[in-house]
Amino acid sequence: MASTFALLITPVADFDIRDTYADTFSVIDASAPALSVGELSTQRGDGIFESIGVSGGHPQEVMPHLERLAHSARLCDLPLPNIEQWREAIAIAADACGEGEWVIKLILSRGIEHGPTPTAWVTAAPAGDFAAARRDGISVVTLDRGFDSGAPGRAPWLLLGAKTLSYAVNMAAIREAKRRGADDAVFVSSDGILLEAPTASLVIRVGDRFVTPRPGAGILHGTTQISVFSFLQAKGYEAVYETLPASALPRVDAAWLVSSVRLAAPIHTVDGTTLPMDSALTAELNAYLLSPRD
Amino acid sequence: MASTFALLITPVADFDIRDTYADTFSVIDASAPALSVGELSTQRGDGIFESIGVSGGHPQEVMPHLERLAHSARLCDLPLPNIEQWREAIAIAADACGEGEWVIKLILSRGIEHGPTPTAWVTAAPAGDFAAARRDGISVVTLDRGFDSGAPGRAPWLLLGAKTLSYAVNMAAIREAKRRGADDAVFVSSDGILLEAPTASLVIRVGDRFVTPRPGAGILHGTTQISVFSFLQAKGYEAVYETLPASALPRVDAAWLVSSVRLAAPIHTVDGTTLPMDSALTAELNAYLLSPRD
Repeated sequence: MASTFALLITPVADFDIRDTYADTFSVIDASAPALSVGELSTQRGDGIFESIGVSGGHPQEVMPHLERLAHSARLCDLPLPNIEQWREAIAIAADACGEGEWVIKLILSRGIEHGPTPTAWVTAAPAGDFAAARRDGISVVTLDRGFDSGAPGRAPWLLLGAKTLSYAVNMAAIREAKRRGADDAVFVSSDGILLEAPTASLVIRVGDRFVTPRPGAGILHGTTQISVFSFLQAKGYEAVYETLPASALPRVDAAWLVSSVRLAAPIHTVDGTTLPMDSALTAELNAYLLSPRD
Repeated sequence: MASTFALLITPVADFDIRDTYADTFSVIDASAPALSVGELSTQRGDGIFESIGVSGGHPQEVMPHLERLAHSARLCDLPLPNIEQWREAIAIAADACGEGEWVIKLILSRGIEHGPTPTAWVTAAPAGDFAAARRDGISVVTLDRGFDSGAPGRAPWLLLGAKTLSYAVNMAAIREAKRRGADDAVFVSSDGILLEAPTASLVIRVGDRFVTPRPGAGILHGTTQISVFSFLQAKGYEAVYETLPASALPRVDAAWLVSSVRLAAPIHTVDGTTLPMDSALTAELNAYLLSPRD
């Protein structure tokens, strides 16, 4: 749904919480013109972002999201975000969220072309209704991500571990999945290694072991996936990072796509093959993901 | 340099040149807020673009640029641009260009998130001064593009032949080149095939043959490169598309990066190896590229 709240941020290296907000924060109309056509986010997809789930007014996993924003900034040679300033911006946005589930987006752009500073803003919007996906599951198709699993290590300029605004391929992969009659995609490296979904992490279950592809292999380290691992480990399960061949996916005991807003969506079908679903565990997992988490 | 002119466009399927512009064109302040934070160009790099060189008030190669815009739209499942409407928008922008060299950018975004229509605009700005690059040449480093030369054929969702707004990797590659002390980069596929530069096409010379990597191999079909081929063929040279191994580049008789605004920049060094330059031919080529072309 469209954003109902937006806050422009003037990124500063030194942020004093005791100062008035007026200097670095400016609430704007989310549907009104706010960015110039010179914005490099819009001209070049040149910037980074995070999507934070908000449940009952509580923004989830704020620090892991801000740490990943800083990690993306480093990979993209952007000025490091001031964590205190962004925490305050998220708190202001969270105050603007109503009941139920919302999403707060953080965007840090390289700024205006030839301009001196980055541009940054935060938005808040009601989340979509993902009850059916969480309960009934989703179908996925595997799609080739084009690069082999060695590419992220040898070519950091591919920005494969950064959450950049250049998401045209991620969006095209979701359209391709829908064209094939599926709900979502799971990317596979050109040498057949499971990676991630265009906007979610993959978690699979084999027996009492839960496995996620290694974040080093050119995929994002999922904040929700980290929460899911905490939940599973607290229940006594083993939860680990491993290199998984694509051929393993149709033979797992269960699989989920996990992300900040849709949360845990069990996969019921992969490339036409039915997967088992554990409805009780999935419900418990989503209840946990909806509870306040820091 | 910053844009000095901007025109917002309401894309329409049917455009009647006799209608007043007021319905679909709106001149705006290029440095003022114009786009909302809900723009998918800015959130997802989800859109396409073209950069058109303007020389002495004449926008160069308008139809090849519009044909490539339409090609990119097809690959990205965007509504096809109305060619007449865009031609008129370019003519209006060209009228706003002053003496010397300018650049007109066309942007077609998927629009506002959850919105009904694409967003589109055209800008005009004075071009940078590329006299030194055209005369003295540039140094380049080869950089791995991550994908193998078969990827574009088997995975169209990678959008490798589309000129999308998701250019973060292209920008990162140029930063990596400068970090290595070079001026620009030349992408190589993971299986060692020469591709293109982040914002230019590669043309090499071996004897009296001129060669450009095949556009089918996941690279853009360069509008300037097409012009360069016309120029060379009119002079009696052979100019062809071929698959070229990266190992060939340091051994060519000459090489250029050609693009709409910098035009033909001869490469004097590739990965530390000096290449011969043909100053007379390069000067003649750039004079041709600066002459009015359609």
